[in-house]
Amino acid sequence: MSTFGKAFRVTTYGESHCKSVGCIIDGVPPGLALSEADIQVQLTRRRPGQSAITTPRNEKDRVTIQSGCEFGYTLGTPICLTVANQDQRPRDYTETDFYPRPSHADYTYLQKYGVKASSGGGRSSARETVARVAAGAVAEKYLGEAYGVEIVAFVTSVGPIEMPQVARGMGNEDFQALLAGITRAQVDANAVRCPDEAAARQMEDEILTAAVSTTPPEAPSPMFRQAGGRLAHAMMSIPATKGFEVGSGFAGARVRGDAHNDAFEADGKGGLRTRTNHSGGIQGGISNGQNIYFRVAFKPAATISQDQRTATYDGRDGVLAARGRHDPCVVSRAVPIVETMAAVVLMDAVLKGIKPV
Amino acid sequence: MSTFGKAFRVTTYGESHCKSVGCIIDGVPPGLALSEADIQVQLTRRRPGQSAITTPRNEKDRVTIQSGCEFGYTLGTPICLTVANQDQRPRDYTETDFYPRPSHADYTYLQKYGVKASSGGGRSSARETVARVAAGAVAEKYLGEAYGVEIVAFVTSVGPIEMPQVARGMGNEDFQALLAGITRAQVDANAVRCPDEAAARQMEDEILTAAVSTTPPEAPSPMFRQAGGRLAHAMMSIPATKGFEVGSGFAGARVRGDAHNDAFEADGKGGLRTRTNHSGGIQGGISNGQNIYFRVAFKPAATISQDQRTATYDGRDGVLAARGRHDPCVVSRAVPIVETMAAVVLMDAVLKGIKPV
Amino acid sequence: MSTFGKAFRVTTYGESHCKSVGCIIDGVPPGLALSEADIQVQLTRRRPGQSAITTPRNEKDRVTIQSGCEFGYTLGTPICLTVANQDQRPRDYTETDFYPRPSHADYTYLQKYGVKASSGGGRSSARETVARVAAGAVAEKYLGEAYGVEIVAFVTSVGPIEMPQVARGMGNEDFQALLAGITRAQVDANAVRCPDEAAARQMEDEILTAAVSTTPPEAPSPMFRQAGGRLAHAMMSIPATKGFEVGSGFAGARVRGDAHNDAFEADGKGGLRTRTNHSGGIQGGISNGQNIYFRVAFKPAATISQDQRTATYDGRDGVLAARGRHDPCVVSRAVPIVETMAAVVLMDAVLKGIKPV
Amino acid sequence: MSTFGKAFRVTTYGESHCKSVGCIIDGVPPGLALSEADIQVQLTRRRPGQSAITTPRNEKDRVTIQSGCEFGYTLGTPICLTVANQDQRPRDYTETDFYPRPSHADYTYLQKYGVKASSGGGRSSARETVARVAAGAVAEKYLGEAYGVEIVAFVTSVGPIEMPQVARGMGNEDFQALLAGITRAQVDANAVRCPDEAAARQMEDEILTAAVSTTPPEAPSPMFRQAGGRLAHAMMSIPATKGFEVGSGFAGARVRGDAHNDAFEADGKGGLRTRTNHSGGIQGGISNGQNIYFRVAFKPAATISQDQRTATYDGRDGVLAARGRHDPCVVSRAVPIVETMAAVVLMDAVLKGIKPV
Repeated sequence: MSTFGKAFRVTTYGESHCKSVGCIIDGVPPGLALSEADIQVQLTRRRPGQSAITTPRNEKDRVTIQSGCEFGYTLGTPICLTVANQDQRPRDYTETDFYPRPSHADYTYLQKYGVKASSGGGRSSARETVARVAAGAVAEKYLGEAYGVEIVAFVTSVGPIEMPQVARGMGNEDFQALLAGITRAQVDANAVRCPDEAAARQMEDEILTAAVSTTPPEAPSPMFRQAGGRLAHAMMSIPATKGFEVGSGFAGARVRGDAHNDAFEADGKGGLRTRTNHSGGIQGGISNGQNIYFRVAFKPAATISQDQRTATYDGRDGVLAARGRHDPCVVSRAVPIVETMAAVVLMDAVLKGIKPV
Repeated sequence: MSTFGKAFRVTTYGESHCKSVGCIIDGVPPGLALSEADIQVQLTRRRPGQSAITTPRNEKDRVTIQSGCEFGYTLGTPICLTVANQDQRPRDYTETDFYPRPSHADYTYLQKYGVKASSGGGRSSARETVARVAAGAVAEKYLGEAYGVEIVAFVTSVGPIEMPQVARGMGNEDFQALLAGITRAQVDANAVRCPDEAAARQMEDEILTAAVSTTPPEAPSPMFRQAGGRLAHAMMSIPATKGFEVGSGFAGARVRGDAHNDAFEADGKGGLRTRTNHSGGIQGGISNGQNIYFRVAFKPAATISQDQRTATYDGRDGVLAARGRHDPCVVSRAVPIVETMAAVVLMDAVLKGIKPV
Repeated sequence: MSTFGKAFRVTTYGESHCKSVGCIIDGVPPGLALSEADIQVQLTRRRPGQSAITTPRNEKDRVTIQSGCEFGYTLGTPICLTVANQDQRPRDYTETDFYPRPSHADYTYLQKYGVKASSGGGRSSARETVARVAAGAVAEKYLGEAYGVEIVAFVTSVGPIEMPQVARGMGNEDFQALLAGITRAQVDANAVRCPDEAAARQMEDEILTAAVSTTPPEAPSPMFRQAGGRLAHAMMSIPATKGFEVGSGFAGARVRGDAHNDAFEADGKGGLRTRTNHSGGIQGGISNGQNIYFRVAFKPAATISQDQRTATYDGRDGVLAARGRHDPCVVSRAVPIVETMAAVVLMDAVLKGIKPV
Repeated sequence: MSTFGKAFRVTTYGESHCKSVGCIIDGVPPGLALSEADIQVQLTRRRPGQSAITTPRNEKDRVTIQSGCEFGYTLGTPICLTVANQDQRPRDYTETDFYPRPSHADYTYLQKYGVKASSGGGRSSARETVARVAAGAVAEKYLGEAYGVEIVAFVTSVGPIEMPQVARGMGNEDFQALLAGITRAQVDANAVRCPDEAAARQMEDEILTAAVSTTPPEAPSPMFRQAGGRLAHAMMSIPATKGFEVGSGFAGARVRGDAHNDAFEADGKGGLRTRTNHSGGIQGGISNGQNIYFRVAFKPAATISQDQRTATYDGRDGVLAARGRHDPCVVSRAVPIVETMAAVVLMDAVLKGIKPV
């Protein structure tokens, strides 16, 4: 199904070539100041055509609030957000359409549904993430205003290139200091969205090389040539207030601690606080008042700049020719996706909080 | 929340004066032939301005399929349906806006949400049913094609006027014969949508009288003057095939049997079938192969043609003047709403059917 | 599925002849004082063998709290409640087991599942309500402690006998006065659980006559002889506090207003309150601060004291002989079921309440 | 909340010291042969006291089927499974109870719920997994009978010791051959549950050393001394039948491919099949007919054999003394937990499969 969450429920719709993509968000608290501009910021960070290392296809991706707001404030009713698809018509079939694209979902969707969208990935296209980003931007607005939460994701490795702070282990002081002070401005300072400038330059080289590289179909390691970005980190600064009910809702987020125990210390006010942060801010599924951090891996884009030996839908072996323009590395555009999906999950946890007797 | 169903999930959005109303339907099986025209039929039966007894406000209510279909067939992915609101701007406040309208949800929404839509009922407006009707029309298409299901609702009483067949008890032969043969063409033959022509004429008189009637605010029975339509019946013809899994999903529909037991008879093929239909086609929450029927009551429209002694939001007693145009009787337009909501519930039950080992 | 609710989630299990019946309740707030005695009260009011008019089968129906409480207080974790079945073994088949019982779910369950419990109704047995009553008793405890809510249901008609206050219409002053002051002690003063003593005596006569009556299988109206209890009313007194968020969760409860508009009056404190209660305490799905009331109809018990002409599972016409002991009238025992199910629904609505920004 | 799944719904209950732990499973297809012995096998593999490297506390962990089965077959109704806790009474407080245990959930639960179980971890105890294992054993039975699915998990690393096949990368031929032929008998051949005997012996030494090791509270790396087992792999063999609807339900399981594209080849029957398995058997959230494999990391047990400098609930700094018996390494007992949770997820995906028009 296409619904995330229980108390903050996001239901998405849209394929790569239908009229629009978007979502209905149910459970947004009433009285929140919210405009299309609030949402547009993250959509713009996500959209293609931002730099030399992303696909040149330039979609506008302008969001429209269809419902749930009046005079700039939320009503507490479902908010429908839509983003028009610029090229709505499924195009004519070409030779390459007879091949399910390797490592895409063309084949598995056809197996499951018995039908498939004509082109472009249909529902499994990354275009679906437009809806998630829009919904998450609403969650970010609420979390920021109500709790001062900030969420910042960034790229830490692309192919074989890794930020040195991370390579030394996440528990090291350099990395912890980086997490403590990171901002979106710092992340957006370069196209790769890696906050270490030297590493960012290396990553950009890697990506640009991959974009033009063509290797024979039997080459052992298209991944490295393809610059498969592998890791993004995200960090949420959450006020360490006692009783803040982040809840058990962060299931699914892989919190990465470094396995040292998180011991406590007296807080000088008759209580205690967690002294260390080796568990990514969560114990037993519940926030402990430290910053939450986690990492996310992305597999390399399956569309590659080389011919691939494969088979057609109707069982004829052949070679699928390399296609044209695409993202040589997805992780930079994934940064706002990771941030907003984290916001969706955290928002649901916050709204599900315990009511005392 | 604004989601109905588990396997066939309908999530609606929209207020009386936002940009559009609509829904996302998740769980529509792939490969179903579906066009906007299929959905428009029921929206047109529901829309205002159809006859002298409904409100003259004439909205077009044209549906657009945003996603989930390609080349006239469903993809198995979420279908987003939108219907533009013709008058999208909330209007200026007037004197009457200081009063919560009696028996509307103005006051309770404000209590619950702390904010309210500026005018017209907001989310609690009957305009929200546009989305349900559109979703239910999709369910009707599937149920008809896959199982031959037909659903027909009709009006049986308006204020004190009641169809004679129903007045004699639902178990009587005349009523059972009526149910067995009823069609939508027969129901739409008059503006009231009551299949008994004599009763329909009486109902129409009652409604037209109510529309112009003004009584003093202390009158004991505005209901009868208001022609509160009270009952609609709906009937679903379902193939009596053994093993048809209607399931326990019809919870919420009040099946009205007449309390005789439903005994069985041999079916001449080594099995049996239900001989009578005293339980509305359902036993223990599961369809028994007979037609399903149930009735639904509507309270009279709360907007009435008379002044009402009441109080303002800020606690000043006063008199709310009668407003202008409105539906004097809602039940005729409710007929497609009842049919399509029944289809939504039945569709969910069908898709949740049991898988054998 | 067997789960009710979103924020207060009750999942039930159990058939008529398995080891136990019970439920898991998820979402009970922590820190609520709760003992088995709190739950037992309603189970004891529900259990068979209480009086001459209920079945003499005397089950103990003792509840055990398996989890979720410690030292007499809830932990906020799932509470599992179990009630052992006294006679756990499915018994041997007899002649009558070859017949699906008319108007029971024997036939429809077999159609849906392809298998059936050996005897006694299996999952569709009224024994399943033990679990709902136990869960609802927990909800009642919380609602009473946290909000002062009291819920009282009572019997208003049995077969043709109806309380005179109700017969005159629910809007009449006698009935409103009755609702305002009703208590469980008053309801339990007689075996029928009708708070009008004269009507209660007539109802008891009707039931006892029905219990011994045998009519031929073709008799037109087993219902009246069977004393099908038809109506119970329930009333919830809810503090008329401004901002009390009962929410839209009462979907499914049929609120019965008498169709007059509910106007307002100044509350003398700069606000307003609902002046009348013609809508059963709810407008637009949200509590308006008045008492909530609704009524529930029960069809007569399908097990009757007469032979029935019907057919066997394998398609042989025949006569199902009248069985032994059973409840001639279910409504008295249904009173705690109605109360506790209302509590489950209200509890879910309360816990889903809106969080302000 | 404590419910997993939509179509196959598992709701668990139980704390470390309440009367019992267990679950209700809703959605088990009717007609499945199922006995307590079927479920017991995995509970016995999970229970403590199996070997020198697990905790010597010897609980019986006998499961009882409370409902949903008759004469050895499922009825299609909710199945309640219970396992009694041997030591049900919460014990007296001791000095150490004034300390929240570092890296346990003692502190965060108290923050969220405002109350806490007296001892032993309460709801956050690993004892809760008893319920998941029992439910998953039911799923395994169905998946095996209906589809021939086998699920086998095994330990690949403990602390610094790693199976050599995995260390060379999951795409290498040795590891792929291992996955293709792995059986539970092979996994259970040693106490660690690592199918490489040489590595298993090294792991066992590592664990036994850790169990007796005591280091000062400031030691930099308790993890390695604690033998934190880090990785288990699981493999599901799924028939490569076209149209097998594993569905998109495997969300949450981190499928680990090695980033090569999965190309296709003609299957010689007019269709095609996936030629390689670089994506762990899943594309776009849908099974591609290859085996599904994934890995799971466990952080080291937080209860360690050394004193820890920390603080009490009421804010006094101090030293929490090392406790007595516990599992020095959890991954061996985690093997059946991983297998059964995978079965729960897969079962839900299978039952949610698409119905064609």
